[in-house]
Amino acid sequence: MINETHDKDLTSWVPGAEVRGGDFPIQNLPFGAFVPKEGGEARLGVAIGDYVLDLRAAAEQGLVGGDSEPLARACRETTLNALMALGSQHWRALRLTLSRLLRTDSDRRPQTQPLLWQKDKVTMLVPASIGDYTDFYTSIHHATNAGRIFRPENPLFPNFTHLPVGYHGRASSIVVSGHPCRRPWGQQRRAPDSPPVFEPTTKLDFELELGIFVGPGNSLGKPIPIADAAEHVFGLCLLNDWSARDVQAWEYQPLGPFLGKSFLTSISPWVVTMEALAPFRQPISRSPEAPPAPGYLSDPDLDRCSAIDIEVEAALETAAMRDKHMGAAVVGKAKFAQQYWSVFQMLVHHASNGCNLRPGDLLGTGTISGPGPGEEGCLLEKTVNGARLVELPSGETRRFLDDGDEVILRARCTRHGFAPIGFGECRGRIEPPMAPVGSPCR
Amino acid sequence: MINETHDKDLTSWVPGAEVRGGDFPIQNLPFGAFVPKEGGEARLGVAIGDYVLDLRAAAEQGLVGGDSEPLARACRETTLNALMALGSQHWRALRLTLSRLLRTDSDRRPQTQPLLWQKDKVTMLVPASIGDYTDFYTSIHHATNAGRIFRPENPLFPNFTHLPVGYHGRASSIVVSGHPCRRPWGQQRRAPDSPPVFEPTTKLDFELELGIFVGPGNSLGKPIPIADAAEHVFGLCLLNDWSARDVQAWEYQPLGPFLGKSFLTSISPWVVTMEALAPFRQPISRSPEAPPAPGYLSDPDLDRCSAIDIEVEAALETAAMRDKHMGAAVVGKAKFAQQYWSVFQMLVHHASNGCNLRPGDLLGTGTISGPGPGEEGCLLEKTVNGARLVELPSGETRRFLDDGDEVILRARCTRHGFAPIGFGECRGRIEPPMAPVGSPCR
Repeated sequence: MINETHDKDLTSWVPGAEVRGGDFPIQNLPFGAFVPKEGGEARLGVAIGDYVLDLRAAAEQGLVGGDSEPLARACRETTLNALMALGSQHWRALRLTLSRLLRTDSDRRPQTQPLLWQKDKVTMLVPASIGDYTDFYTSIHHATNAGRIFRPENPLFPNFTHLPVGYHGRASSIVVSGHPCRRPWGQQRRAPDSPPVFEPTTKLDFELELGIFVGPGNSLGKPIPIADAAEHVFGLCLLNDWSARDVQAWEYQPLGPFLGKSFLTSISPWVVTMEALAPFRQPISRSPEAPPAPGYLSDPDLDRCSAIDIEVEAALETAAMRDKHMGAAVVGKAKFAQQYWSVFQMLVHHASNGCNLRPGDLLGTGTISGPGPGEEGCLLEKTVNGARLVELPSGETRRFLDDGDEVILRARCTRHGFAPIGFGECRGRIEPPMAPVGSPCR
Repeated sequence: MINETHDKDLTSWVPGAEVRGGDFPIQNLPFGAFVPKEGGEARLGVAIGDYVLDLRAAAEQGLVGGDSEPLARACRETTLNALMALGSQHWRALRLTLSRLLRTDSDRRPQTQPLLWQKDKVTMLVPASIGDYTDFYTSIHHATNAGRIFRPENPLFPNFTHLPVGYHGRASSIVVSGHPCRRPWGQQRRAPDSPPVFEPTTKLDFELELGIFVGPGNSLGKPIPIADAAEHVFGLCLLNDWSARDVQAWEYQPLGPFLGKSFLTSISPWVVTMEALAPFRQPISRSPEAPPAPGYLSDPDLDRCSAIDIEVEAALETAAMRDKHMGAAVVGKAKFAQQYWSVFQMLVHHASNGCNLRPGDLLGTGTISGPGPGEEGCLLEKTVNGARLVELPSGETRRFLDDGDEVILRARCTRHGFAPIGFGECRGRIEPPMAPVGSPCR
């Protein structure tokens, strides 16, 4: 799976792409969609250093997709769906072409250079048309910590170690990094036996997740065998599953999270491909007491490389910290490789009843938390549902998010002998609640 | 709201449209999408008697939309989304034009007649591109009956009478009436403490619901005031929320239904418009002990006409009954007007956190059940999760659905002084499970 595009000694002529410099060296080459700030149609791009390569222009000039009309057509689309549908052979061919265009010794630098956009000259978009969005719950540490708050005697439901628990999410309210998060209103109870009120949430939280973009789909009624799973995953992004804990707590029985989640989900603009992540795959590791995974979710070859070593973190910057130029403070840091279920198991379980997945569908991993302190992927866990304070370098404290707070998610892969790659950022700043529903000034 | 298109004395020159004859008199005029069996592109149509009026052809010939280019364009689309987005003024104008074209005394019968397709010459399609699908749980009788099975001491959660409980469903696996329902595989436990197995479901069930198609949407972050709710609802269809009860029971904690539902959802092809339903609206009725609805879900004017008097029923035809030409047996019959929450309250609650609804989004009402025996909208309730047998006229019995069984949902509105209208049917026949996942013959 490792090929010349992963060579740690490769460098690019594009400024900012120096290996170990930033998130986007030539070994990464993530895909996204953007519009130029000067105006124009949406188009696809590839992040390289401090620039974005205009994939549509590259296809129009025959620099990519020259020998494959479907690939050239997919590169000229406004979303990644067509490229996602093409499958791994096309993705590999495109990556190799891009790598060779952008290398320091490329002889096509003169034609390629005019197709670069400075990052600050473009506005990034949600990279795909997301047909369905599903959110999983696959960190045993998160499930245990969150479960302990509500069911101290029985934190982990018995199904957790037998299947990747998940639920359908809301696709319409998925936005790209930078979109503000307006504090939602919702029905909630302030105390267990008090009457419900309809007010802005006071328990606004983030959830540190990764998003998985589906590549080629499956037909309705045709599950995906686990041995084929890798062919159906295009790549990963950062995902913040914003949550209103008070709304969620009141509404969720018996059918699960609804309006406590559906007001907004933020994703990072760049989709890091499974090929870029290939050097960071490793065996899935579970405790010796864990029950074996069921047959339809096990494959000996895949199990040897189904975890991905990605370090993820969530940082918080309050308005006061911003004013004082203090930078954001990391509030949670965890290893994605500790997730109980792999991205392949999530995908295969999802399709195991015949449910059809489509190119561009998005799966969330669920909050990624580690076992120790400082490894919590959301404030619910970190503050034990508001019982403890998070202390920030500014001297401020938080139980949940305040207006003006900005949450920044990041992720990075490092491994000796390989160039580190990053995911960019997924940012969102909390805005005050809207005026009451039905108010004339809404 | 009642106008000349509802006049009970109106008749149509189209065969089968006789008032009281069938589901589709001229007072109904529901919309759908179809492809001619002889081939050709998808197009929109209107059901009238035993025929389908080709809306695209009518627009191309200037018979509809003549004075509104957006309306004419919407009529030429392949799905109803554009028409749904236009809003009630356009819907009303189109309905009036159609009514006048199809009346017995129409002077445009010669131009209109060639645009009719016999029903058996067309294949109906899912009528809209459904961006997001949400399923509610708004029958207090269903919630109480189903809840009693799992929590006899506490059948109804305390939130039920304060908000319309709902969850996000899967949009990709929504199919139109007639699509078979293949028995899904899924993880389940055969007894409370036995290890889970991955097998075809043995508790396959239907759910008798209505679907609500959203008209104009709302922007992200902008809730819909209850006073504006009616402008956002295009119409209703039948909906069968197929359910695998054993899979659902094992997977649903803590995040709600997932694979026990997502393998298939069937809807009827014809969307009955809110305008056609206008004569059947009535005050919402709740028991005197019911808590008042919260302010954001209450509007005095709307509350006077927010329930819709629709009689819904589910019928079952086994293979043996089909062979003997016995016809299907009604197994559940209920009144939609008894639903605890109205379609408007579902819509407004959904958007109350700022979640954006889009034209063509689909909301399910949840299983519609009445308080008495024979009024159960699913087998889970009717057989008390398989503890009792349903006896069929063929002498057969059922706890849940068998392979070869066909479920037929129907709905009808009747009111003295108005022509009755119907919803057509939503059919689905159970097929045996697919071969095991990963099997070479899958």
